[in-house]
Amino acid sequence: MKFSSRIEECYQSPIRKFHPYMVKAQAKGRKVLHLNIGQPDVDTPPAFFEELRRFGESVLAYGPSPGMDSYLEAVRDYYRGLGVDIECDDILATFGGSEALQLAFSCILEEGDEVLVPEPFYPNYNTFIRVAGARIRPISTTPEEGYRYATREKIEPLINEHTRAILATDPGNPTGVVLTAQERRLLVDIAKEHDLFLISDEVYRELVYRGEELSTILSFTDAPDHLVVIDSVSKRFSATGARVGALISRNRELIGHALKICQGRLCAATLDQVGAAAMYRAMTPEYYNLVRQEYRYRRDAVLAALEKIPGVRYERPEGAFYMMVTLPVEDADKLQYFLLEEFEDHGETVMYAPGEGFYATPGKGRNEIRIAYVTNPAELTRAVELLGLGIAAYKAQGGK
Amino acid sequence: MKFSSRIEECYQSPIRKFHPYMVKAQAKGRKVLHLNIGQPDVDTPPAFFEELRRFGESVLAYGPSPGMDSYLEAVRDYYRGLGVDIECDDILATFGGSEALQLAFSCILEEGDEVLVPEPFYPNYNTFIRVAGARIRPISTTPEEGYRYATREKIEPLINEHTRAILATDPGNPTGVVLTAQERRLLVDIAKEHDLFLISDEVYRELVYRGEELSTILSFTDAPDHLVVIDSVSKRFSATGARVGALISRNRELIGHALKICQGRLCAATLDQVGAAAMYRAMTPEYYNLVRQEYRYRRDAVLAALEKIPGVRYERPEGAFYMMVTLPVEDADKLQYFLLEEFEDHGETVMYAPGEGFYATPGKGRNEIRIAYVTNPAELTRAVELLGLGIAAYKAQGGK
Repeated sequence: MKFSSRIEECYQSPIRKFHPYMVKAQAKGRKVLHLNIGQPDVDTPPAFFEELRRFGESVLAYGPSPGMDSYLEAVRDYYRGLGVDIECDDILATFGGSEALQLAFSCILEEGDEVLVPEPFYPNYNTFIRVAGARIRPISTTPEEGYRYATREKIEPLINEHTRAILATDPGNPTGVVLTAQERRLLVDIAKEHDLFLISDEVYRELVYRGEELSTILSFTDAPDHLVVIDSVSKRFSATGARVGALISRNRELIGHALKICQGRLCAATLDQVGAAAMYRAMTPEYYNLVRQEYRYRRDAVLAALEKIPGVRYERPEGAFYMMVTLPVEDADKLQYFLLEEFEDHGETVMYAPGEGFYATPGKGRNEIRIAYVTNPAELTRAVELLGLGIAAYKAQGGK
Repeated sequence: MKFSSRIEECYQSPIRKFHPYMVKAQAKGRKVLHLNIGQPDVDTPPAFFEELRRFGESVLAYGPSPGMDSYLEAVRDYYRGLGVDIECDDILATFGGSEALQLAFSCILEEGDEVLVPEPFYPNYNTFIRVAGARIRPISTTPEEGYRYATREKIEPLINEHTRAILATDPGNPTGVVLTAQERRLLVDIAKEHDLFLISDEVYRELVYRGEELSTILSFTDAPDHLVVIDSVSKRFSATGARVGALISRNRELIGHALKICQGRLCAATLDQVGAAAMYRAMTPEYYNLVRQEYRYRRDAVLAALEKIPGVRYERPEGAFYMMVTLPVEDADKLQYFLLEEFEDHGETVMYAPGEGFYATPGKGRNEIRIAYVTNPAELTRAVELLGLGIAAYKAQGGK
């Protein structure tokens, strides 16, 4: 049978190929520690489960296609708490940030279009953009520049007649880069001048570590038609299995187009919206401070452990819970196979996400990895230690 | 800002235009009865809510991208109960039947492709197929033929080099048509002979009223690569707000392609899968019999009330909870405006879904409506009575 060229050009998760090797390592009795997984072990706010236990309807009915009022109002009020004035009509409830991205791309992108995305980037962007018939045109960054990308010099030469949008992840996955106010202003200016959408994926908003105020691209009110925010409760409330997000824009034409698809799929999950609304209502600055502090500990544990590994290079990440690390090896894939097949220390080994999957430019990122610092500090410290021991063992037996 | 041509060609729900008129009628103190809404008032099985109350995890985590084992096994065992041998690897958990459709179309359809769909059809098919860049080529039916479509004469002349799939809804929304075993066999044969996918949307499977055995296109084992089933718990368990469905096919290449998108959007909603698995485990033939009996009462209440309206034409629907009715007026849209703006009987009026939105062929269905018989028999009887009184009043004041 023939399949669409769009889907043929997508790929399954690049980490999947290591899965059988992990299973074999575990079968040999080895414990595999994970630096590759974005699933936090932080508790979901109890408000979520409490609200669901209170749910008293006997029929679990469709919600409205744009979202349930209680959820939309909770999102609106959360943004008003950030000093940003938006209306419920600027918001669509979605199945996580993922569906918000799919909606935006379906509305904006045509076969042959291009989206500017700083690389390294979240690999699922590639899937969604390819399925919409378009392509990522990467904004190149380097580890040496700390993966920063928001300059006219880097972006403007890439804009052509096919360019439809700039997609920023702020705070950044996988880099941990947090844009400055000046950088955000510049992206908005470029979007306005070149008539592009600026899609800002802000699902890690609260996870910033320099003491700055929380921010959103929506605080710029001079480009209402150009700015689109992707949001989700997944990371904010450590509730990744609650697939509730939001597509937010003051561009009512965009919201109207996206609503056609929302009506097509009828509604987002009712119970997840009910629980999400309760979490927004229950949230306090103290909650976010505690979560932020917890991830900062974890980041610092990883940084302290990385310092002891000779030859690795990295920048201190400023946000989210990821960081890129350049290893003193040529090919992080080969090292990963070695770690799973040959290496062990006290019966333990480690997995990470090899860097190549985060790049569109062929060959880039081969000596880089992404670390997710989402488990407890002791486990993270040990996992990074295993990485160091593994690199040493790999080199000792001639690995490059 | 420019939007994609695909989304420009989609439309918002055609029933939306009546919403402000309904609000005005209600503001005048009128009660509006609904024949237009597909939200059943049958209780969701308590097993769903009980299982969620038992959910003991403190972190609501990502599930696996293909679906949670407990849910996939429940779906597999449900199909085995129908005498159909499928594996968990043939199933992907989706956000309702809607996402299963979106996945199938994204994998199969290319810009310019065509899908054969008997009309009248579920209008959201048009949205999903247009967003995938393709078009519906309608298989024409008539009220006189009871909207039946599964013949070589109707289908084969429509097949050309752009045809990629036949999409059947069985039991049918909006027609209530249930395919016979011979008709299903013929569709499978046509799919095989012309190398097309046969996508069978079977979300109303249990709602059949002629005493037949439950069936699925998957019982044909001679075309494993061609057959795709769309399924959902929404209607089966009266749980429309639980957005859990399934894409099912023995074509592992199709499942592999769809899994790329599933990995992109990470996972279906965890709690809805947990609750859905519990409903499947708790379900008994008695439950389905009770639900089927209840909808049969409702159908029969509507049929009895329709008999009293002069000039209406319809077939007795065999399945699902919808039927098409041809009215003795030229334009069901105009009648709907009249019913909301001018008509009332004892302070009550009625809404339906005008037929035109269920057709791709321009002008067809203008004197038809779709009735959903999902509320209690007394209310349905009164709603149809109001329709009859409204038609008489409309004609009395010169309406055509």
